[in-house]
Amino acid sequence: MKFTVLKQSKKSSARAGLLETAHGVIETPVFMPVGTLGTVKALTPELVAEQGAQIILSNTYHLFLRPGADLIARAGGLHKFMHWDKPILTDSGGFQVFSLAKLRQISQDGVEFRSPFDGGAKHKFTPELVVDIQRQLGSDIMMPLDVCSSHTAAKKKIAADLRLTLDWEKRALDHFTSAERNHQVQALFGIVQGGLHEDLRRESAEYLRALDFAGYAIGGVSVGEPAEDLYRVAQYTAALLPPDKPRYLMGVGLPQNLLQCVPFGIDMFDAVLPTRLARHNTFFAPDGPENILNAKYAADLTPLVESCDCYACRNFSRAYIRHLAQAKEILAIVLMTIHNIRYLVNLMRDLRRKILNDEI
Amino acid sequence: MKFTVLKQSKKSSARAGLLETAHGVIETPVFMPVGTLGTVKALTPELVAEQGAQIILSNTYHLFLRPGADLIARAGGLHKFMHWDKPILTDSGGFQVFSLAKLRQISQDGVEFRSPFDGGAKHKFTPELVVDIQRQLGSDIMMPLDVCSSHTAAKKKIAADLRLTLDWEKRALDHFTSAERNHQVQALFGIVQGGLHEDLRRESAEYLRALDFAGYAIGGVSVGEPAEDLYRVAQYTAALLPPDKPRYLMGVGLPQNLLQCVPFGIDMFDAVLPTRLARHNTFFAPDGPENILNAKYAADLTPLVESCDCYACRNFSRAYIRHLAQAKEILAIVLMTIHNIRYLVNLMRDLRRKILNDEI
Repeated sequence: MKFTVLKQSKKSSARAGLLETAHGVIETPVFMPVGTLGTVKALTPELVAEQGAQIILSNTYHLFLRPGADLIARAGGLHKFMHWDKPILTDSGGFQVFSLAKLRQISQDGVEFRSPFDGGAKHKFTPELVVDIQRQLGSDIMMPLDVCSSHTAAKKKIAADLRLTLDWEKRALDHFTSAERNHQVQALFGIVQGGLHEDLRRESAEYLRALDFAGYAIGGVSVGEPAEDLYRVAQYTAALLPPDKPRYLMGVGLPQNLLQCVPFGIDMFDAVLPTRLARHNTFFAPDGPENILNAKYAADLTPLVESCDCYACRNFSRAYIRHLAQAKEILAIVLMTIHNIRYLVNLMRDLRRKILNDEI
Repeated sequence: MKFTVLKQSKKSSARAGLLETAHGVIETPVFMPVGTLGTVKALTPELVAEQGAQIILSNTYHLFLRPGADLIARAGGLHKFMHWDKPILTDSGGFQVFSLAKLRQISQDGVEFRSPFDGGAKHKFTPELVVDIQRQLGSDIMMPLDVCSSHTAAKKKIAADLRLTLDWEKRALDHFTSAERNHQVQALFGIVQGGLHEDLRRESAEYLRALDFAGYAIGGVSVGEPAEDLYRVAQYTAALLPPDKPRYLMGVGLPQNLLQCVPFGIDMFDAVLPTRLARHNTFFAPDGPENILNAKYAADLTPLVESCDCYACRNFSRAYIRHLAQAKEILAIVLMTIHNIRYLVNLMRDLRRKILNDEI
């Protein structure tokens, strides 16, 4: 994997770059649609690509449980299994183990949890296993197992979780570089944790910088904290990361978040919101998200967003999409998912153009 | 509308034809996917067309209730509203009024019913209004309002319903030809009713033949009767219809039904089953419909149907689609809908080729 900063804005820390992976080149800053289970919900891979998505995110935890990494490896890897030949980033599953799984039990070695399926079978994630699973998936960018503390936990607890996370990340990198003969093809990022505490974020960033990951993620944000805390931590942490490596702000992807955080020098974003909002009848619009079921759209023959060039806006009216949504037709979700992804793709393209012109 | 029989098979009553409409030429025999509410469920119109669908069916009753024919007319008609530029046939709503609507009350003039929406507002369909609604929708082929008796009703009741239906059909045609200056563009079919009784079917067919509709449908089948009755009535009735007009067997569309009824000289079919089965995890296969959730598909990396050329079969495995279906991912429905439609399109193309070669 190779990252090149093509342009550092004169106006802010924003930069425009190129991230070269085995499955193609990504223009940064970039928004990554989420395909948790190996599908960007509601869309064929062709429709995802047509919206200009350059890379998608998928999830180790979910795919490990169902359908299993062995099957995906036998299918030739996740790209082939899901029929997506552009880059894939896989999340480590740390966040899911700590937020979704039942009866999780953490030790120095790793984390045990019970599956929500198969009668609650017990599983254990270790930093090494999570690398191995992602190797089976064949993602272009892997994430290491981390401990995801609640941002409202006591600082002492967050600090202890952070130190365990850093130990796990070192183990993941050691395992990746020793056993993985393939690290020209796959890349491992580090994840900076430390909650809302700047000293912990600094400790985390300094430790991980020394380990020389292929890129650096900012984790533990977008977990319910106030927006001002998100922005403060993102800005503070981004400035601590090596300028020549991509920076990825995990789980952040609302339009206003992207507009705010790109100037901090963040290169990569992901969020389930654009696709999830679509499934809740909500589409992005210049003045904020709008619900298509609003009665004012009942006879509105204009597109979702007049200036939008997405397939949904070029071919269908608000009245039609509202009619579909009211009848719970799947096509309503398909069209609003297309629109929401395209909306963020266009927003990022516009931000990139502005960076290249020193406008932001 | 113009219908040409290109070839009458020497082996059966099957024929291959061309049906020319304002929105394109249809090769018959043809299967018409159903888009009840102005969407073939789960697919973009482009995906419907890519499967080779030449014409779709939509529903007057449903569209009248929601979003309303006035709105669709203001949008420029149903083709434009739903972004589908190939032919559309609209069902009259007769079947729906009698099977879905509450508190229907039938009179010589028409049928009153309560909407399932809007606090049960009262509506009345007359033969004339149903033509007017379909004129607003702008469908290529309209159907007249009919009384849909239960096939298990007493013969006396079925006969009375039939005579009312014939009166309504004459009124529909009178209204269509007198008020409709547009009948070069839109066409009105007649519907033969009469339950499972051959003498009533004959009476119906003879009455309607004299009225010179643009085509003739066989209604009141595929409503729970045994397959042998369906085939008997379809074959008996088809033989009573004018050879130079298209014949449409309403609501029939399982693969075995198509194979059986094309040799009777039926030219057009529709059914919700291919799309409905897909939403119930079921795909068409050579030995009959199969459920993708079957455990035997869990690690099966072959396509749904090895010989199928559909998008789903070219790009995805049973294991992947089963994984999606198990996780209730929308893409599972999308892929199986694509497959099921394509399966019937291919089956009809194959039958047409066989007719042209006197093989069936």
